[in-house]
Amino acid sequence: MCELLAMSANVPTDIVFSFTGLAERGGVTGPHVDGWGITFYEGKGSRTFKDACPSSESHIARLIKSYPIKSETVISHIRQANRGCVALENTHPFDRELWGLNWTYAHNGQLSDYKDKFAVRRFRPVGDTDSELAFCWILEKLVARFGDERPDDMLPVFAYVAELAEEIRALGVFNMILSEGNYLMCFCSNNLSHITRRAPFGKAKLIDTDVVIDFDKETTPNDVVTVIATRPLTDNEAWNIMQPGQWQLFCKGEVVGGGTFVANTDTCA
Amino acid sequence: MCELLAMSANVPTDIVFSFTGLAERGGVTGPHVDGWGITFYEGKGSRTFKDACPSSESHIARLIKSYPIKSETVISHIRQANRGCVALENTHPFDRELWGLNWTYAHNGQLSDYKDKFAVRRFRPVGDTDSELAFCWILEKLVARFGDERPDDMLPVFAYVAELAEEIRALGVFNMILSEGNYLMCFCSNNLSHITRRAPFGKAKLIDTDVVIDFDKETTPNDVVTVIATRPLTDNEAWNIMQPGQWQLFCKGEVVGGGTFVANTDTCA
Repeated sequence: MCELLAMSANVPTDIVFSFTGLAERGGVTGPHVDGWGITFYEGKGSRTFKDACPSSESHIARLIKSYPIKSETVISHIRQANRGCVALENTHPFDRELWGLNWTYAHNGQLSDYKDKFAVRRFRPVGDTDSELAFCWILEKLVARFGDERPDDMLPVFAYVAELAEEIRALGVFNMILSEGNYLMCFCSNNLSHITRRAPFGKAKLIDTDVVIDFDKETTPNDVVTVIATRPLTDNEAWNIMQPGQWQLFCKGEVVGGGTFVANTDTCA
Repeated sequence: MCELLAMSANVPTDIVFSFTGLAERGGVTGPHVDGWGITFYEGKGSRTFKDACPSSESHIARLIKSYPIKSETVISHIRQANRGCVALENTHPFDRELWGLNWTYAHNGQLSDYKDKFAVRRFRPVGDTDSELAFCWILEKLVARFGDERPDDMLPVFAYVAELAEEIRALGVFNMILSEGNYLMCFCSNNLSHITRRAPFGKAKLIDTDVVIDFDKETTPNDVVTVIATRPLTDNEAWNIMQPGQWQLFCKGEVVGGGTFVANTDTCA
């Protein structure tokens, strides 16, 4: 299994505090030593930092913890390998361009009997994880459904991704985070939680290392920042624990869509 | 204009020495202050570090100069913006997946009247540079010529890219570097040079900053390392200055293909 972390905010925000907690799980408080990565969107552009070595020991992770990159959308992942060896090409997040947008994706879980289902042609995996192949299949299905032109309304696109994610969940565990820069989507199979911070801001204390932050000093009253993580990162705040089959779509920190699949039926789209 | 740097080696090799020289041109010895990037291939995987700020001031560039990442294929670029504003999405190298391979590309030069020529559908630019659009067009043409399956023999693929590059050269200045991880191709419009270092290794002295390296102490007798740069990076070695319309293909440091277009005729393929 792995650990996921993501952020959606209405102002460029640094994720140093949350990443510091996550990185501890890559070798100190958690066993996820098989690589890590983080993608920052800055405007239409994005950049991904990756390392196949444990995040708690990585020079590059140290840079990310000490050099605040301001971003409105972030996706991060620390890996405990199951399918696919420990190698850079198997390190999340994965990214692909579609419709002139950089899509970024990370997965926590493990799938079985998936190779026949995930027939791909245009988008192909570079590494050999179930995760990257599932991502390629999702993009393949998006093109089949929506064509080569970027849809004006992206909400139906993410609703369709949720349907595909629910199909994938039938093959195993599929906690997933996906973004094209503007929207941030998460899909819960068994372990995903989120929190939205807004004024009045308070203090937060990391579970995994002895760090406290006073968000009131770091923010302005209009800031809205949502953080998604496999497990809550702080122990003095109320995180929303997602349900199996539940998905949420965020934009600029706010919920803009979501629902829960129960026995393959979307009950509250 | 911009500056290009690339490396092809038969053993994982760090590019700290050459990158140190290049990074000086991003604000100290050169005017290329509009961002920089570097892509390292490690096995089938790759990772790109990018910054929209000058390489001479960048925290991330400092990491790259101090933390040797060993790679067999590297592409780097420092930017002086002409087409497209200073932004992460306009920062080279650009990358796309095709045939399950990560393709990485960087361009030095400027094109005119290019929009009608570069009709794209499957591969679309995220930013608004002529460079990224030309890259998307090249990939579009590769799919049109070779289909969705990866060709067993990649040499005809790169020979076709050279033909496309020669077409693009008619639109302006097109110095270009391209790789899918295994092969490294460069195409010269007006400014590109390369050097292949092999035993017996000697000392090299950077032009742009006061650094000397003794490669004999850093290498083994079997190492073959080719470096490509817009302008020679050292002043005590014999660099090969490429001709307009000339292209070279390297694999594991050795030349494996190339030729020169003269009046649109390939004279020595």
